Amino acid sequence: MAHHRRPMADTRPRTFRWETRDGGKVGVITLDRPERKNPLTFDSYAELRDLFRALVYATDIKVLVVTGAGDNFCSGGDVHEIIGPLTRMTMPELLDFTRMTGDLVKAMRACPQPIVAAVDGVCAGAGAMIALASDMRLGTPRARTAFLFTRVGLAGADMGACSLLPRMIGQGRASELLYTGRSMSAQEGEAWGFFNALHEPGALMPAAHALAEQLAAGPTFAHGMTKKLLHQEWNMGVDEAIEAEAQAQAICMQTRDFRRAYEAFVDKKQPRFEGD
Amino acid sequence: MAHHRRPMADTRPRTFRWETRDGGKVGVITLDRPERKNPLTFDSYAELRDLFRALVYATDIKVLVVTGAGDNFCSGGDVHEIIGPLTRMTMPELLDFTRMTGDLVKAMRACPQPIVAAVDGVCAGAGAMIALASDMRLGTPRARTAFLFTRVGLAGADMGACSLLPRMIGQGRASELLYTGRSMSAQEGEAWGFFNALHEPGALMPAAHALAEQLAAGPTFAHGMTKKLLHQEWNMGVDEAIEAEAQAQAICMQTRDFRRAYEAFVDKKQPRFEGD
Amino acid sequence: MAHHRRPMADTRPRTFRWETRDGGKVGVITLDRPERKNPLTFDSYAELRDLFRALVYATDIKVLVVTGAGDNFCSGGDVHEIIGPLTRMTMPELLDFTRMTGDLVKAMRACPQPIVAAVDGVCAGAGAMIALASDMRLGTPRARTAFLFTRVGLAGADMGACSLLPRMIGQGRASELLYTGRSMSAQEGEAWGFFNALHEPGALMPAAHALAEQLAAGPTFAHGMTKKLLHQEWNMGVDEAIEAEAQAQAICMQTRDFRRAYEAFVDKKQPRFEGD
Repeated sequence: MAHHRRPMADTRPRTFRWETRDGGKVGVITLDRPERKNPLTFDSYAELRDLFRALVYATDIKVLVVTGAGDNFCSGGDVHEIIGPLTRMTMPELLDFTRMTGDLVKAMRACPQPIVAAVDGVCAGAGAMIALASDMRLGTPRARTAFLFTRVGLAGADMGACSLLPRMIGQGRASELLYTGRSMSAQEGEAWGFFNALHEPGALMPAAHALAEQLAAGPTFAHGMTKKLLHQEWNMGVDEAIEAEAQAQAICMQTRDFRRAYEAFVDKKQPRFEGD
Repeated sequence: MAHHRRPMADTRPRTFRWETRDGGKVGVITLDRPERKNPLTFDSYAELRDLFRALVYATDIKVLVVTGAGDNFCSGGDVHEIIGPLTRMTMPELLDFTRMTGDLVKAMRACPQPIVAAVDGVCAGAGAMIALASDMRLGTPRARTAFLFTRVGLAGADMGACSLLPRMIGQGRASELLYTGRSMSAQEGEAWGFFNALHEPGALMPAAHALAEQLAAGPTFAHGMTKKLLHQEWNMGVDEAIEAEAQAQAICMQTRDFRRAYEAFVDKKQPRFEGD
Repeated sequence: MAHHRRPMADTRPRTFRWETRDGGKVGVITLDRPERKNPLTFDSYAELRDLFRALVYATDIKVLVVTGAGDNFCSGGDVHEIIGPLTRMTMPELLDFTRMTGDLVKAMRACPQPIVAAVDGVCAGAGAMIALASDMRLGTPRARTAFLFTRVGLAGADMGACSLLPRMIGQGRASELLYTGRSMSAQEGEAWGFFNALHEPGALMPAAHALAEQLAAGPTFAHGMTKKLLHQEWNMGVDEAIEAEAQAQAICMQTRDFRRAYEAFVDKKQPRFEGD
């Protein structure tokens, strides 16, 4: 184990909740200001970014769940704490801010852990981007997702939305959501491929935890490679992607997890993966 | 306002209709040879291209609607006026033609105004490409869209179809439509994300105008940035796209529309955007 | 006709069946070890790769159908014949293998013939990749498609899956299938754009042959250009794709098939294409 690696279970963030489950392999991030529908602030953006960056070196956490407290996911950047100050900033200060929010998405895509977003209620603005930047999304029938940047006079181009959303739901539907800022219903989200599945509110967190535990019980080193290649191949040609995967998969074929799977198969048992 | 900018409301095209609505902020292009289902000719291709190129500098028009007269959208390149002459051209002349038709799509993607296509009846060949090159598409239950190039012995690769259609409806469905030239029904088009919504024929133009007016009442400078970034990020990596959006959104944060939105929010009013 | 071109109808592969239909214009590949659900072996990977590479120069075959014998498509790499040996290989040997499997997909995308996959029953692992690397896919209601690499301890990044699958069914759905290895039902596959259509088992091969014959009766030189451009434009910008299509279509406009189509239209007849 490289000397710069360390366990992350005992992280104590100030601006959101952090818990571990499943013997410490699943990290759960809960945006937790339910009386305001869990808005983001300058501090919480930065602390989330730093957490995801540190997770690259985590020795313990294999899968992440992101959710919100009290029947809502996240209402996005707080109007008073974020939008007000932005209207008074200089250009270098504005760019500092937009790069910081973008760095949160970059960090979510760069950490090796698959991220499951569990989305109930309001999922708006930067909150919708956190859901979109996750690897998979579970919702409830009452989840309302809005890329509402246009409603505050801004472009739909925020935190990578114009790149990520079209690949998730198609260019035409993404264009409508980004130009109009209208809410996507949960049913639309499922039909269009934004949500992997919908669950009743009471069943949402159990489903998210079950999916996270299933992933954590899998070959987590290989999951990290899947995530890395999904990212790397975003704008590669097909032939270049195939060579990238030939190299990536050859690496995975020298893991112990691959050998464990083969030996379990020969013994007619279920493999037990350990992520190495 | 830059000296090369000018109002476009009084444009008088010869080969299609041009009207403005919503106090001159919405430009409506109507392909208008209904007895032939609104085919394109060498002249109308060129004049459409020139109109979209000029719209980059328009001081008045903020949103565009494209439609066809008399229950059909557009039947594509006219067989007698276009296909016949093409069979007698030299290679440089052919390339002149295919570049001109491609330039129409480039111009539609390069102008800052979001384009709403209102599609009833026949939407075929180059007509289907005009719908596809629009930002959003409204249809009717009887709209029939066909990329029928293969029916006249040509490739499905025309005016950017092999790039645009897969991102709109998925690679597998696009492949089938481009190889076979078959019609996509309106219901398929809605289920697959080609159409944003379907409306009964009598309700199509009201719906298109309502959407256009909603967009024109929004932050139109920011809309232009959304459109530009959707275009620029087509083959960017995620990280590069995020940096591009950080810069684009920082620019939008120094618009007056952003300040207007904040002040309206503080005053508990609806913001009134002015596009600056 | 270039001197390196030759007919392929009389090919005699050892590891799968090869037949021609439709007067020799349609080549049908049948994976044929039904008692094992048609697994792939080192030899069949290599022989499939070589066949698709040779098809670039075929003078006779215009369309391909790929299917499996006995109610299943393909169960992927054989556990005993492939996975066992892989666990004992050196890194250069592993890379040889992953590049060979990737070369099969590259060869499928590089040959000019549109490929129709006819998928019944099990479609798993490398078998799912063969279906995915085809141009169109017909399935049955009982087809079960699984990118199950993760089940044997590997990454979902195999043979181009992280590039091809997201463009076919959307990034979020592809992520779930690649991380979990779960089966995609036939109904999901159709709703998500993986399958172009579903047919009852007894109607699957007739439908695949009918589609293949329809394509073979079309402008097959132009089909090859459509396929090439769909491949080339995978990571081009829109403007570059439009120029690429302007050139490609200008080439197609000097084919005899284009002239045949025009003359048939003028004579009010159906065009008869000959692929030149």
